[in-house]
Amino acid sequence: MTGDDDRGRKHTVIGSRTARVDASLKVTGGAIYGHDLVLPGMLHGRIVRSPVPHAILRSVDVSRARRVPGVVSVITGKDAACQPIGFLKDQPVLKADRVRCVRDEIAAVAAVTEEAAEEACRAIDVEYEPLPAVFDPFEAMKPEAPLLHQNAPRNRVPHYLEFKAGDAEKVLEKSEHVVEGSYRTPFTAPACPEPSFAAASFDSAGRLSLWASTQVPFYLRDVLSKCLGIPGYRIKVIQPSMGGAFGARLDVFPYEVIAALLARASGRPVTIAWSGQEEVECCATGQAVFVRLATGVSREGRLTARKCEVTLDAGAYTSWSVTQPQIMLMAVASLYRVENVAFRARSIYTNNPPSSAWTAYGNPPAVFAVEQQMDELARKLGMDPMTFRMLNANKPESTTPQKLRIRSCGLKQCIETAAHRVGIDRRKEKWEGVGLASAIHMGGGGRMFKSDGGGAVVKLSDYGKVSIITGAVEAGSGSTTALAMIAAEELGVPLEWVHVVAGDTDTAAWDAGSHSSRTTFVSGNAVLEACRKLKKQVVRHGAKLLGCAADDIEVKGGRVICRGDPSKSMALDRLVRAVHFTQGGEIFIESAFYDPPSEFPSRDMTGNLSATYTFTTHAVRLRVDPGTGRVRILKYVAVNDNGKVINRGGLAARVEGGIQQGLALALAQQLHRPGGEEEEGAASPRTTFRDYRVLTFRDSPEEIDVHFVETDDPVGPFGAKGAGETGCIPVAAAVANAIADAVGVRPRSLPITPDKVLALIRNRGGACS
Amino acid sequence: MTGDDDRGRKHTVIGSRTARVDASLKVTGGAIYGHDLVLPGMLHGRIVRSPVPHAILRSVDVSRARRVPGVVSVITGKDAACQPIGFLKDQPVLKADRVRCVRDEIAAVAAVTEEAAEEACRAIDVEYEPLPAVFDPFEAMKPEAPLLHQNAPRNRVPHYLEFKAGDAEKVLEKSEHVVEGSYRTPFTAPACPEPSFAAASFDSAGRLSLWASTQVPFYLRDVLSKCLGIPGYRIKVIQPSMGGAFGARLDVFPYEVIAALLARASGRPVTIAWSGQEEVECCATGQAVFVRLATGVSREGRLTARKCEVTLDAGAYTSWSVTQPQIMLMAVASLYRVENVAFRARSIYTNNPPSSAWTAYGNPPAVFAVEQQMDELARKLGMDPMTFRMLNANKPESTTPQKLRIRSCGLKQCIETAAHRVGIDRRKEKWEGVGLASAIHMGGGGRMFKSDGGGAVVKLSDYGKVSIITGAVEAGSGSTTALAMIAAEELGVPLEWVHVVAGDTDTAAWDAGSHSSRTTFVSGNAVLEACRKLKKQVVRHGAKLLGCAADDIEVKGGRVICRGDPSKSMALDRLVRAVHFTQGGEIFIESAFYDPPSEFPSRDMTGNLSATYTFTTHAVRLRVDPGTGRVRILKYVAVNDNGKVINRGGLAARVEGGIQQGLALALAQQLHRPGGEEEEGAASPRTTFRDYRVLTFRDSPEEIDVHFVETDDPVGPFGAKGAGETGCIPVAAAVANAIADAVGVRPRSLPITPDKVLALIRNRGGACS
Repeated sequence: MTGDDDRGRKHTVIGSRTARVDASLKVTGGAIYGHDLVLPGMLHGRIVRSPVPHAILRSVDVSRARRVPGVVSVITGKDAACQPIGFLKDQPVLKADRVRCVRDEIAAVAAVTEEAAEEACRAIDVEYEPLPAVFDPFEAMKPEAPLLHQNAPRNRVPHYLEFKAGDAEKVLEKSEHVVEGSYRTPFTAPACPEPSFAAASFDSAGRLSLWASTQVPFYLRDVLSKCLGIPGYRIKVIQPSMGGAFGARLDVFPYEVIAALLARASGRPVTIAWSGQEEVECCATGQAVFVRLATGVSREGRLTARKCEVTLDAGAYTSWSVTQPQIMLMAVASLYRVENVAFRARSIYTNNPPSSAWTAYGNPPAVFAVEQQMDELARKLGMDPMTFRMLNANKPESTTPQKLRIRSCGLKQCIETAAHRVGIDRRKEKWEGVGLASAIHMGGGGRMFKSDGGGAVVKLSDYGKVSIITGAVEAGSGSTTALAMIAAEELGVPLEWVHVVAGDTDTAAWDAGSHSSRTTFVSGNAVLEACRKLKKQVVRHGAKLLGCAADDIEVKGGRVICRGDPSKSMALDRLVRAVHFTQGGEIFIESAFYDPPSEFPSRDMTGNLSATYTFTTHAVRLRVDPGTGRVRILKYVAVNDNGKVINRGGLAARVEGGIQQGLALALAQQLHRPGGEEEEGAASPRTTFRDYRVLTFRDSPEEIDVHFVETDDPVGPFGAKGAGETGCIPVAAAVANAIADAVGVRPRSLPITPDKVLALIRNRGGACS
Repeated sequence: MTGDDDRGRKHTVIGSRTARVDASLKVTGGAIYGHDLVLPGMLHGRIVRSPVPHAILRSVDVSRARRVPGVVSVITGKDAACQPIGFLKDQPVLKADRVRCVRDEIAAVAAVTEEAAEEACRAIDVEYEPLPAVFDPFEAMKPEAPLLHQNAPRNRVPHYLEFKAGDAEKVLEKSEHVVEGSYRTPFTAPACPEPSFAAASFDSAGRLSLWASTQVPFYLRDVLSKCLGIPGYRIKVIQPSMGGAFGARLDVFPYEVIAALLARASGRPVTIAWSGQEEVECCATGQAVFVRLATGVSREGRLTARKCEVTLDAGAYTSWSVTQPQIMLMAVASLYRVENVAFRARSIYTNNPPSSAWTAYGNPPAVFAVEQQMDELARKLGMDPMTFRMLNANKPESTTPQKLRIRSCGLKQCIETAAHRVGIDRRKEKWEGVGLASAIHMGGGGRMFKSDGGGAVVKLSDYGKVSIITGAVEAGSGSTTALAMIAAEELGVPLEWVHVVAGDTDTAAWDAGSHSSRTTFVSGNAVLEACRKLKKQVVRHGAKLLGCAADDIEVKGGRVICRGDPSKSMALDRLVRAVHFTQGGEIFIESAFYDPPSEFPSRDMTGNLSATYTFTTHAVRLRVDPGTGRVRILKYVAVNDNGKVINRGGLAARVEGGIQQGLALALAQQLHRPGGEEEEGAASPRTTFRDYRVLTFRDSPEEIDVHFVETDDPVGPFGAKGAGETGCIPVAAAVANAIADAVGVRPRSLPITPDKVLALIRNRGGACS
């Protein structure tokens, strides 16, 4: 099944159900990941990390380590000249004077074998003078709490975000119904199948090549340049195949810089390849989020106002995560129509390891709060949750108080279809519940840097085949396949004819990286534009070679055809060769760059964050086991407006992956506090993948039903919008609503583990967190 | 010192004396050559070769080899399905039924260690039934000679070239003076410092990556595709740093295909890295050439006619070398003005190893004959060699009988300057001689394929720095530096700001490869055109940002400046970032392709082979030691018209390198006949670099004086013409003329070794070969 759009275009590739172009490489083990990399003369790098959460470093003695046979270089914060990193440049790459969390980087070793590197790490003697530590952001704000950074009194990160539209407080007071609540989501691990990795090599002319699993190769180049004092044009970032990212590779991390420092110190290539256990212990964590939310509604069921206070646990240093409130505000102010909004967010330093981005950038915790209150309000109004949501849903071509300009919007159809497909009115057994939740997300880029653009070079080879050279990053979402499909459709060739070359900042056009579900939309538009230029060239030559008018030429199935007289046609490769292999010949190579009409987040949090937005409604039917507290998902429905669907199979799979990830957030995953207490809001380095539960096929819902409401977006490539993250966003909220429906009590914190469900059941009639 | 051209342009980079941009990598050992390559799971490939020159293969038994521990795959001509290669597709990659020369490839092995591979090679049992062999092309043409290929009666390669202008035979009869002679040049080794190398790896999706030291990556991709039956777009050719080529990497050779066959058979990457000794024994040899030439002159000293017969020893199989006569004809028909020319060339199969291209593609042997006869004719006329040559020299904007269209031409100035600088009229000691010789060569590409083009993608990064992504091949001549200088000049930035990325068919625009001294001219024009487009974009934005008219903007020293008001200016990087880092921003990336007005060689050998031509005159003063026969070069002068000089130091170094190579051809180098007799025209696999003399610094002339006659070519980038090969062409001829001047007898064959000089001296008064 392939699609055709509302503008009457018939598509042959777009809308089809297509295997990913990188599938065979990935399933056969043929994809080359960073860990597979071998460089001539390569050394193995290892990092010595702090086992204590807060301490003065009295001394770091590396003399024994230097004597370990096979050790080539040992570096510490004292001798490695390097600028600090992080959103507020508050994190030294190697900590010289003080550690602020468990796993803080203190020293690093490069040696000829992994064993020697490990032995040398053990031979580094560090003397700590312990300091009191704080792991809870609310504790951290108290005057008596230990202070992490001098410029952050009360541990408040000096990056405070506030938004105001109308007068939420006054309107709430006058609203017919108001619900209020506090909601918590824990630190999470991205749980990428591929552990983190970085390799660095200086050539003898001083040019640095850095291989890394990164979502942002051009940004990484830039940070390395500033950090190491090397001009950016003398750095090349290479991105091998990537085994997942989920936001965890969005920033630049100490280990990437350390690889370069070790390579510089030793004059040889150095690889730092984490073990699986290291990945759990030291990964960039999803941020712990605390939301306090109040929502009001009129007698007629119209949302009147929202007041929201967000507290983020930044951990010991800042990362992009301090900007998450920009996205959280979308759920609060732009998912449903509400005129009065007061929103405040603060990030707090604690002695937890630094938090980072995680899928959908704070949107899931925000929706967890917002969508539970939608259910509570519907109940107060005596309306059903579907009708109440449809009444308040956003509409196409509208502007929200936050100044998001909604273009295409299929939210109403999503709500209606999801409710219908889950059978919201169907009879429920005892302990069965049904829950709905919707989400809005970036669908047209996200201006994380001043440029939100992406470039593409597209070549047509002498074989009539297409190469796309792109700076876009395939983080596992299938965006590469989407780019190939866009090119195939526009150039009228089979998908197998398209090859995507990526992952090298030297050869690729600039790209803002893989985030904000932006690649298919932004890079897709760039690929489309470059292909249009190429097609013009093909049509011009086709008309000449076939002897017919240019507007009578079409390219289809790899052939250039005269519409008026189909007997006049030629294979595309013949055309290319005819044009190329002649005196004064031409080749077919074009480039394009697309920067969307998205706006850089402003200090007052207004602005059109993305060129267009995606919508989704999830509906879940589940049963709670009152004996064990276990939750069994009977049916999971996700109805999505991602604009026109490019790869029907791929997008469905992406949504299913998001659902699975969302279910893990809802029911299973959390990183624990260093002390070992099972409490939210802290990350422990002692977790393993045995207790940090990544859901597997066994935990999958009995039935997953992914459906698409295909709006035709006016700015998306072939009407498509971004889709990478939406599948994950409303899952926890939908599950929480269904559990509340089943047991009559509302969960307020994630994950909703079996013992928490049992506590809910015990608390029936009262509130429970 | 930098240049400015006749059109009044002031240059800041072009014409300067500049270190090669790859110099620091090369001199520090930091450049990565093929032999440095390590691929995960890589196997070592070795080839079993024939020790006999001609035989039926009775049996090839690999059963013992397969049992050698560590062996992963063994292939023979019987089981490796693969199309034959060579100019006439006459060479099986692995020989199944018959071997036709020593070193013919019979079987190949891939094993986990080099030792295992070698042991397995020794364990392959081959049974040969010897056949009579022939090593001399004139013997090979006899009816009783053993026949090498069924479709080639009398061993004549079915590729016969003939050219006729006027009536040479009749005119010769009526000419005032006629000289006649036979000239021989031997098989030579390219003697690349880097032994041959190929590595192949299939990914699990079946895409082939082939790393090779090749001058023609796109052609190699094409041949591999046909040979292996893999679509060309599923092959990527990667070219690491290259340690010399000299024509020896111009073709596709069995070892390159065998690497791919072994990789396919073993399912693992395979590298075939030759040893230094293998390189001498198995390299692509420079062809043995036999020239019979007659030249006539009028009483006034005008050349009247030339008749030339060329016999080429193709060896056992054809390579590009059978097309060498196209270039040889240039020396005969287009260096000096001559209206009547009869030229015939035949290539003959022998049981010598197949010959290939060598620097300047037959031009040195042709000039060796032509320029000796110029001296002989001058003597007969009683004219001095300089005056006689100037009288007959070609002129700018003329067309030769061969239909070469000469554009810029500084030949007369070259002759005069060279003669002057060597002191042609200066007193000579006894046994001292002075010789002159000139050459014409391709300066504007050479259409070896139907496309003679080259493409470039040029990017301006956010750092204001320039990246050139090119398919052009740096074979060691310094072309990369020239490309960088062209970009720096056009974009108004320091040379250090330009970085050239090359060597990957996936990311680069198509290029015809490194041959015919074409890279600086063809790819230079492509780079220039792409830079012009970029500059237009810079100027457009500069005008807007600085608030002045576009035609008032200049870019100089990395700054964009308003000419009328220089206080208005900004750094280029600031401009790029201002344009890029904004909503709807642009990046700076442009591509261009240049295919010169050169013509594909026609069957009648007429046509304009190159868009423009280079000229050079060499003059040498030497002394012969009558006791030892040794020749001592006292002064060597090379005056060159390569158009405008781009890199003054680099080009001088390139010319000096060519002189050294030419001196080796003149005085030292030859590959010997398998039987071990020291006779020209045959190549032995038992030569080592101990007896195949590569001249070193010790053998260098006492003084080398390189001078440039800078014509401003109308089609060259910044007026430049190609320059890679010219330095080598007239050396042997000039040396021969000087030796003849010193001893009174003319050498007719190369190399002019000391014993040959002694024989000349003994023969004074008589002819000697």
